[in-house]
Amino acid sequence: MKNKNEKSPIRIVGSYISDHFGELWDKSLNDLIEEAVLGVIKSVSDKKNFDPEEIEAVYVANMASGIFNNQLHLNAVVSELFKHFPPSIRVEGACASGSLAMIAAQDSLNSGRFKTVMVLGVEKMTDFNSNEATKVLSAASDYNFEYGSTFPALYALLAKAHMHKYGTTREHLSAVSVKNHRHALTNPKAHFKKSFTLEQVSESSMVADPLRLLDCSPVSDGASAVILSTKNSGKLLSNKKVASDKISYKNKPKIIGFGHAQDSLSLANRKSLTSLNATISASKEAYKQAGLTPKDIKVAEVHDCFTIAEILAIEDLGFFKKGTGGQATLDGETTFGGKVLINPSGGLKACGHPVGATGVKQVAYLADLLENGFEVGDGKSKKIQNFKYALTHNVGGSGATVVVHILEK
Amino acid sequence: MKNKNEKSPIRIVGSYISDHFGELWDKSLNDLIEEAVLGVIKSVSDKKNFDPEEIEAVYVANMASGIFNNQLHLNAVVSELFKHFPPSIRVEGACASGSLAMIAAQDSLNSGRFKTVMVLGVEKMTDFNSNEATKVLSAASDYNFEYGSTFPALYALLAKAHMHKYGTTREHLSAVSVKNHRHALTNPKAHFKKSFTLEQVSESSMVADPLRLLDCSPVSDGASAVILSTKNSGKLLSNKKVASDKISYKNKPKIIGFGHAQDSLSLANRKSLTSLNATISASKEAYKQAGLTPKDIKVAEVHDCFTIAEILAIEDLGFFKKGTGGQATLDGETTFGGKVLINPSGGLKACGHPVGATGVKQVAYLADLLENGFEVGDGKSKKIQNFKYALTHNVGGSGATVVVHILEK
Repeated sequence: MKNKNEKSPIRIVGSYISDHFGELWDKSLNDLIEEAVLGVIKSVSDKKNFDPEEIEAVYVANMASGIFNNQLHLNAVVSELFKHFPPSIRVEGACASGSLAMIAAQDSLNSGRFKTVMVLGVEKMTDFNSNEATKVLSAASDYNFEYGSTFPALYALLAKAHMHKYGTTREHLSAVSVKNHRHALTNPKAHFKKSFTLEQVSESSMVADPLRLLDCSPVSDGASAVILSTKNSGKLLSNKKVASDKISYKNKPKIIGFGHAQDSLSLANRKSLTSLNATISASKEAYKQAGLTPKDIKVAEVHDCFTIAEILAIEDLGFFKKGTGGQATLDGETTFGGKVLINPSGGLKACGHPVGATGVKQVAYLADLLENGFEVGDGKSKKIQNFKYALTHNVGGSGATVVVHILEK
Repeated sequence: MKNKNEKSPIRIVGSYISDHFGELWDKSLNDLIEEAVLGVIKSVSDKKNFDPEEIEAVYVANMASGIFNNQLHLNAVVSELFKHFPPSIRVEGACASGSLAMIAAQDSLNSGRFKTVMVLGVEKMTDFNSNEATKVLSAASDYNFEYGSTFPALYALLAKAHMHKYGTTREHLSAVSVKNHRHALTNPKAHFKKSFTLEQVSESSMVADPLRLLDCSPVSDGASAVILSTKNSGKLLSNKKVASDKISYKNKPKIIGFGHAQDSLSLANRKSLTSLNATISASKEAYKQAGLTPKDIKVAEVHDCFTIAEILAIEDLGFFKKGTGGQATLDGETTFGGKVLINPSGGLKACGHPVGATGVKQVAYLADLLENGFEVGDGKSKKIQNFKYALTHNVGGSGATVVVHILEK
C-alpha cells in the first residue's frame, strides 16, 4: 500500500518544441509563445476532452525579452492566453532560465499547491543582428569584472586552459560540432540541417581564438513547453492516441532527480578553468536523488553553447575521465552506438539556442525520446532505440549557474 | 501533540531595507545587493554565532537590471556573496517581482526542499534619467497594444474612469499623496521626507491628466531582503537581542495566507477600469487561507504607484465600499486613528519605488512593524501601537499581476 506521506512523482505529461528553431523573421515573441502554449496542450489532448483549466499555473523562462522585444512582465503575456488567467511567474538565470523555471515549477508541485503546471521557455532574438545579440548576451557575464568580453571570448579562455592542461586539440573541438550537426539532421525542429566535415569546422572563420564560427551555437528564435503533473489519473491525457488515462499517466517520463549549483559569475574568481565545478556539484546531487551513477545514463542533452562546453560537460558529468572528452568525441563515443549518446537533438550548436527556451527544450526533447524511443536508420531500415534514463544539463553564463535533471521512462 | 503531516508555518525571521531608498548616485547595483545581504544577516545574528550556510537558497527579485545595469544572471551575483554559493533564482513580474519571488521561496520551503531561504529585491534605476527610466518601465505594459503609453498615462485612464463613475475628485487623489508623504516622515528609510499640502499636490506639474507630479511614485534606487524559515529552533536567531532561540522563533511574524492572480496585460482587454480584478481575486484567496476578513486587517502596505492606485487598492481589498476610497482617505480613515492604517512606510509614493525591491520591502517593513510595533507621537510622548495582522498588496504593470500576503504577529 502506498505511504500516504509519499509524494507523487512529477511526470512530464506533455511536451512541445516550436516548429522550428531558427531565424524566424515571420514570428514575433507573442507568436512563439502562443505556438508553444497551443502546441503543448495539443500534445496531451484533443480539443473535445481537454480542459485547459487543469493548467493551474505557468512558469515562464526567458532571458532578455526586456531588451530584445521591449517586453518585460512576460508572465502576464502567457496567462492572458488562457480564459482562466492562471497565476504565472517568470524566471531568469541567463541561459539556465529554462531549467530554473522547471525547478520553481517542481517546488510548486511538491509543496502540494498545484497538481498540474506548464513550464514555457521562449526567446525571440533575431530582431537584433548577431553582433547586437552577442552584446545583449554578455549581460550574463560579470559586468564589473568581465565587461567587454563576449561569451565566445570567455569560452575561448576555457578552451585554451583545457588544451594547455589536457592536450585537447582543434580536431577534438571540431568533432563535437561535426557530431551535433549530424545529429540535427534527424531533428525536424533543428535550426541547422546541414552536415560539416572536421576540416570545414576547423577552417571556419575565427571568432575568438581557438573558437571558430562552427564552434559556436547560433542566435536562434524558438520556444518550448512542457506540462508537469503529479496526478495519477484524470482527463488531462484523454487524447486520441491513448486507450486508458491511467495507463497513459504511468507511461509518462518522470523526474527522478535534479541538482542546482552556483559558482562565481566571473571566470577570474573560479577555482578551476578546466572544469565547471557547478556542473560537478549539480550532477552529484541529481545522481544521488536518482540513485544512479553516470554509467546508468545512456542519453543526455548537455549545454554545448560552444564545442569546448560539451567537452567540459561530458567530463564534469562523469561520463568520461577528465581530459579525455575530446578524444572520446572524436572516437564516436558520444554518438549512436557509442558509450553515451550526447545531444541527439543536435544540441545548442545545431538544434539552436533560443536562450530562455533551451532548458525547457532539453526536457521536452528527452521526454519525447524516452516515451517514443529514438528512430535510427534511414527510411528503409528504421529501428527504434529505447532508453530508460535521460539527463539534461543546462548552464547559465560561463558556468555560474548549472542545473541537471534526470528523467526516467 | 502536533500532527506530523502539518506543515510548519513560514516565519519572517529577518528583514532589512536599504538605507535609504532614493537617488543613490554613490551606490551601484552590486553595492545595494551587498548591503541588503549583509543587512538582513545582521538583523538576525551577531557574527560570532550566525552561520550564513543556514541560508540554503536565495530568491532574487528584480525587474530591469538587464537594461538599467547591463547585468542579467543576477542570481549568480547574489550567490557569489556567500562562501557556500547557495542555489539562487531570479524572479520577474514587473513591479510585482518582489512578491512573486516571495511565492517561489515559499513553495521551496513548503515542498520541504529547504528550511531557511533569503528573498532579496533590488533595483538600481537612477543611472538612467527619469524619462529614460519611464520608457524602460513601459516594458511592463502590453508592447503590442499599449506601446507608446507610459505608466502615468495608463493609470490616468484608470483615474478618469474612477472619477467618471464614482465622482472621485482631484482633492481625493491629493489626499493620498499628502497622507503618504506625512507617513514617510516617520520612516528613516524613505526616499522623501517632506510634507505637502493638498493644494501643493493639486497644483504640482501635470504629468498625464489628471495625474500630476505629486500623484506619481518616484524613480528610486533601493534593496530589501527578508529571511524566511520553517525552523522552530536552532542557532539562526542566537543574536544579542534575544534570550532564547525558541522564544525568538515564536515571536517572529508568520505568513498565514497569500493570493496571486492575473488579469489581461492591456487595459483594453479588461472587464473593468474602476477595479483591479486581480486584486479582488488575490485578496479573496489570501483572506480565505488566513481565515480573516478585511475588517480584521488594521494595517497594510498597498501598491500606490500612483495616488489612484491606492484608492483602487483600498476598495478592491475590501477595506472600503467601492467608490468611497477617495473620500475615506480625505476623511483620515487610512492614517493613524482611522479605520485601517494604509502605507505607514510612506508607500511607493513617498518611501520610494525601486521596482524589484518594492514587494520585498512591503513584507520587510510590516514584519518589523508586527514584531516591534509602530512608534507614534513625537520624542516627548512616544507610544507603541501594536498590530496582530498585516497585509501587503503588490501590483505588476497596470494590474495584470497582483499578489497579496497576510502576516500574523
